[in-house]
Amino acid sequence: MTFGTAEYKERIRKTKKRMAEKGIDVLLITDPANMNYLSGYDGWSFYVHQMLIIFNDEDQPIWIGRTQDANGAKVTTWLYHENIIPYPEDYVQSDVKHPMDFVADILKQIGQDNRSIGVEMENYYFTAKCYQQLQKGLPNAKFHDATLLVNWVRIVKSDTEIEYMKRAALFVEKAMMAGIEMINEGVRECDVAAKILHTQVTGTAEYGGDYPAIMPLLPSGEKTSTPHLTWTDERYKQGDTVILELAGCYKRYHSPLARTLNIGKPSDKIKNLSDVVVEGLNACLDMIKPGIACEEIEETWRKTIQKSGIIKESRLGYAMGLNYPPDWGEHTASIRKGDKTILQPNMTFHLIPGIWLDQYGFEASEALRVTETGCETFAKLPRDLFIKDGALTKS
Amino acid sequence: MTFGTAEYKERIRKTKKRMAEKGIDVLLITDPANMNYLSGYDGWSFYVHQMLIIFNDEDQPIWIGRTQDANGAKVTTWLYHENIIPYPEDYVQSDVKHPMDFVADILKQIGQDNRSIGVEMENYYFTAKCYQQLQKGLPNAKFHDATLLVNWVRIVKSDTEIEYMKRAALFVEKAMMAGIEMINEGVRECDVAAKILHTQVTGTAEYGGDYPAIMPLLPSGEKTSTPHLTWTDERYKQGDTVILELAGCYKRYHSPLARTLNIGKPSDKIKNLSDVVVEGLNACLDMIKPGIACEEIEETWRKTIQKSGIIKESRLGYAMGLNYPPDWGEHTASIRKGDKTILQPNMTFHLIPGIWLDQYGFEASEALRVTETGCETFAKLPRDLFIKDGALTKS
Repeated sequence: MTFGTAEYKERIRKTKKRMAEKGIDVLLITDPANMNYLSGYDGWSFYVHQMLIIFNDEDQPIWIGRTQDANGAKVTTWLYHENIIPYPEDYVQSDVKHPMDFVADILKQIGQDNRSIGVEMENYYFTAKCYQQLQKGLPNAKFHDATLLVNWVRIVKSDTEIEYMKRAALFVEKAMMAGIEMINEGVRECDVAAKILHTQVTGTAEYGGDYPAIMPLLPSGEKTSTPHLTWTDERYKQGDTVILELAGCYKRYHSPLARTLNIGKPSDKIKNLSDVVVEGLNACLDMIKPGIACEEIEETWRKTIQKSGIIKESRLGYAMGLNYPPDWGEHTASIRKGDKTILQPNMTFHLIPGIWLDQYGFEASEALRVTETGCETFAKLPRDLFIKDGALTKS
Repeated sequence: MTFGTAEYKERIRKTKKRMAEKGIDVLLITDPANMNYLSGYDGWSFYVHQMLIIFNDEDQPIWIGRTQDANGAKVTTWLYHENIIPYPEDYVQSDVKHPMDFVADILKQIGQDNRSIGVEMENYYFTAKCYQQLQKGLPNAKFHDATLLVNWVRIVKSDTEIEYMKRAALFVEKAMMAGIEMINEGVRECDVAAKILHTQVTGTAEYGGDYPAIMPLLPSGEKTSTPHLTWTDERYKQGDTVILELAGCYKRYHSPLARTLNIGKPSDKIKNLSDVVVEGLNACLDMIKPGIACEEIEETWRKTIQKSGIIKESRLGYAMGLNYPPDWGEHTASIRKGDKTILQPNMTFHLIPGIWLDQYGFEASEALRVTETGCETFAKLPRDLFIKDGALTKS
C-alpha cells in the first residue's frame, strides 16, 4: 500500500463530510484517481467498468470490479477482502449484460437502492450508458451529480503526497534534459520519445518511475502551432523549434514540465515569444501565495505581457497531482479569469503559459506547490528557450 | 496523413451504409479511434471533449474540438479547413459551460437539430454529462445508441492496415525479448519497463514506434494471480514468475503479445499450467479460418484443455487494431461462448488464453490475422514458458 491506513481513513472522513453537505448517502466513484485516493487501488483495469462505493454510514468502502482484477484489489487496497466484490467475466464488453446492472443488484441486495446516490456524471469512466443502466436498475434511488466531489478533497496534498511529487520532479528534470540533449538535426522524433520514456520510468537509483497519465508531447516545426501532438518517426531539421511537455510520475503522482528548444539560431519571433512568456511566468511565480484567488494569477500574467500584444485565450494552468490516463489535471481549480478558488498551502498546480500562434509556438511551465508564504517549483531547470548550437545546448 | 483520401472516403461510405440501416441521419463520434479511422485525426487531446460528426447527406465530416487543437486537426486530417470548428477555451473543464452545449448550438445553426442522431453511449469519451447536455440542447432530436457502429466497420482491415500491424509486430517482438533478456534476480521492475518502453517506441531503423494504448503489464510473483498490475520499483527475486503483456504500435495500430518467464527452475505447477495453455493456444491457431464463429474457437480451447481440469471463465480474446488509451481492444467480437461473429479474412484478434489462479498465473498470447484459408500470427516467438537459468534464457 502506498499510504498508511490512517491517511486513507482521513480521506474517507473528508469525503463523507462533503457527501453530508450535498445530501449524498451513497457515492459511486468511477474516476480511477479517486478510487486510488480512497482505497489505494492501482491497476490498468480502468478500461473495463469498476467502482468504489462509499456509504455515509459504513467505515469501509466496497470495491466492485471484474473477477480477474479482484486479486489486484486484494493486493493494492486496505479493504477487507469481503468488501471486494467481483462481477462475472461475461459482463465484460457485452451487449447483453452491463456491469452497472450488477452494481444495481448489489445495492438492492444490501438495501441501499432507495437512497440518495452520487455519481460522477462528467468522468471518462462513467459513460452515458452507465448512467442509463443505473437509472433503470435503481428506480427508487435519487441521483445527484457528484462530479469532482472527491477531486476537491484531493486538491490540498498531505506532506507525503508532496514528497512523492518531489520524487516525480527528479524524474522529469532528468527526462527533460535527456530529451533536450538528444534532439538535433537528423535525429528521429521517436528515438527522443523513447529516451524520454526510458528516463521517466527508470527514475533514480533510489526510486523508480511510474507511467505518466499523458505520453510525452513533442510537437516540432510548424506543428508547434498546436500543443497535443505526440511524435512521429520523422527526423528533426535545422531551424526546428521543438516543444517538450512531459511529467515525472511516482506512485501515480505527477510533476509535469514544459520547455522549448530551437535547433540552431532561433528566429527573432520565437526569441521574442520566449521572452514574453518567461517574463509572464516569472511574474506569476513571484506573486503566488496562500489567500489569493486563481483568477488573480491570470490577471498578473495578462498585465505583465500586455505590452507585447500577445493574448492567451486558454487557461494558464490547473490543479494536478495523482492521476491516470488520459489526464494528469485534477479538473478542479483552473488558473483563468473567473476562477475564484483561494490558494491554500499544499495545493499544487501546473502553471503552463503556452502560446500557440499559427506558424509556431512556445511553452515553458512549472509544477508548483503553494507554501505557507509563497510558492516553490518542484523542478529546478532554466526557463528560457534552449538553443542547440551544433552538439552544444545553451539557454 | 496516414492513409490516402480514397481509403478514408471508403470508410465513410461503409459507415453511412450502417447509419442508413439503423435509421441514423447524423452520427456523433467521440471514440478517438473512430475519429482517427474516419478523419485521420491524431493527438493526445481526447482528455477534453472532441467529436467528429458524420451527416448522411454530406461528403465530409465536421471536426469539433478545443481551439488550441484545431491546428492539430488541420495537420492530421483530410478535412477542408472550414469543416474544422473550434470551441472557445472557456468551455474546457468548466462547471458553467459544456462543450456539448456548443455542439448542440452548431447542430441548430445548420438545421440538423430535429434529426435522428446517433451517439456512442458506451464510450470512455462520451460521459453521462455529455448525453444529458445534448438532450437538453437538442429537444427535437431523436437519439439512438450508435455504440460500436464504426468499430464494426473497423473489424475487417485493409491491406495497408495489416501492413501497419506487421510493423507493430516487429516492435513487440523486440520489446518482448528485451524484457525477457533483462529480467533477472535483483533487477528492478521499473528498469525492465523502461527498457521495454524504449524498445517499443524506438521501433526499427526503418519505422518508429507509437505509444501503445496500454502500458506494459508486468505482474510478478504472487501478483501474477491478476493480470492488470503494471510495475513497481521492487527487485525480482529468485523463483519469481513474471508475466509480460505488451504491444508494439505503429501509427496507432497494435500488435499485442503476452509471454511468461520464470526466474530459475519453475515449479511443477507453473510448468504444467504453461503446457496446458500452450496446447490450447496451438489447437485454436490450428482451427481458426474464415467461416467459423468466434464461439467455435472457445469450444476448441475448452475441449482441448478439459482433461487438465483447468477452467477459464474470462474470454479467450477479442478483435483489435487501431486504438487509443485506455484499451487496444475494439470492443466488438470476443472469443467466448455465445459470440456468433463469423470470421472473415483480414479480421485481426488478440488470442490471449491467460489463466490466473489464486497464487500464480500464466499467459501466452498471439495477435493474429484471419487469412483466406486459416490464420497467421503477427509475431513469431516461442510460446512456452521462458526460463532464466543464470544469465541464460531458454524456452
